[in-house]
Amino acid sequence: MAASVRILGIDPGSRVTGFGIIDVRGRDHFYVASGCIKTPADAPLADRIAVIVRHIGEVVAVYKPQQAAVEQVFVNVNPASTLMLGQARGAALAALVSHKLPVSEYTALQVKQAVVGKGKAAKEQVQHMVVQMLGLSGTPQADAADGLAVALTHALRNHGLAAKLNPSGMQVKRGRFQ
Amino acid sequence: MAASVRILGIDPGSRVTGFGIIDVRGRDHFYVASGCIKTPADAPLADRIAVIVRHIGEVVAVYKPQQAAVEQVFVNVNPASTLMLGQARGAALAALVSHKLPVSEYTALQVKQAVVGKGKAAKEQVQHMVVQMLGLSGTPQADAADGLAVALTHALRNHGLAAKLNPSGMQVKRGRFQ
Repeated sequence: MAASVRILGIDPGSRVTGFGIIDVRGRDHFYVASGCIKTPADAPLADRIAVIVRHIGEVVAVYKPQQAAVEQVFVNVNPASTLMLGQARGAALAALVSHKLPVSEYTALQVKQAVVGKGKAAKEQVQHMVVQMLGLSGTPQADAADGLAVALTHALRNHGLAAKLNPSGMQVKRGRFQ
Repeated sequence: MAASVRILGIDPGSRVTGFGIIDVRGRDHFYVASGCIKTPADAPLADRIAVIVRHIGEVVAVYKPQQAAVEQVFVNVNPASTLMLGQARGAALAALVSHKLPVSEYTALQVKQAVVGKGKAAKEQVQHMVVQMLGLSGTPQADAADGLAVALTHALRNHGLAAKLNPSGMQVKRGRFQ
């Protein structure tokens, strides 16, 4: 059996934080789970931060990822929105590091290049490729798909991830025919 | 003995997060500790976030505050700085809520009004009043003083905090002559 690495991808947002979990074995990627963490819009900031921290904690406790990948966010034209987005992202990162997960960061450009092959790809193309690469039977919600896309980016930019992590493990590279 | 409440005040910053801890008994305030959490400027964001989370965790573990107060931050003219500040603040809030601390937020205006008595007070006046109100023998570093100021703000805006928290406890209101 090939060594397996489980990656948690996070796409932070001020209202919705998307997440996606994949397993990587050799050059194969397998869907594990995905979803959205929605924060109550009218709640005090500390409560919204608490929702993000608690839900990421639950995802980590249930699925036990070994690595995390977080999408870098755009600076918004609205400074207040940028601050809010930063706070949500900081909370997500804090939750990940407090669970001792190594965190890698990728820009939207890197995600598009890794998943679609070109930096100018539309959001729909990223979602389409996520569905194709993971062999999903349906299209996940946009933020969840973005979480999966950043997890895939981490896997694709680190070929041999599983081998590196578990160098003494028995390796069976499974070819991918497509 | 009057019921006592321990408050942790936090002044988040992208490079330095100040903190200050005070005890409140009746209308009296007592200095407990203060300091600065400095993040390595050139380190990856996840590492800087980890420093904030770990140090706040240590402060909470050592001093066991019951409530937290966090200063609201200004939106910077530089969007990238605003994002970074937001991330640091989000991490600080995440660390506090993950230790189950109730968090209150105060604007710089509220801190100045509470501590100095006027919203237009200079930063030095706030520091001066922190030294006076807590009977300090020296002036703490600026960020630490700001942490103490926001803790004092929480205390001053919630007179009877200790009584509210511990209604069954024996209360001795000690007058303040000044």
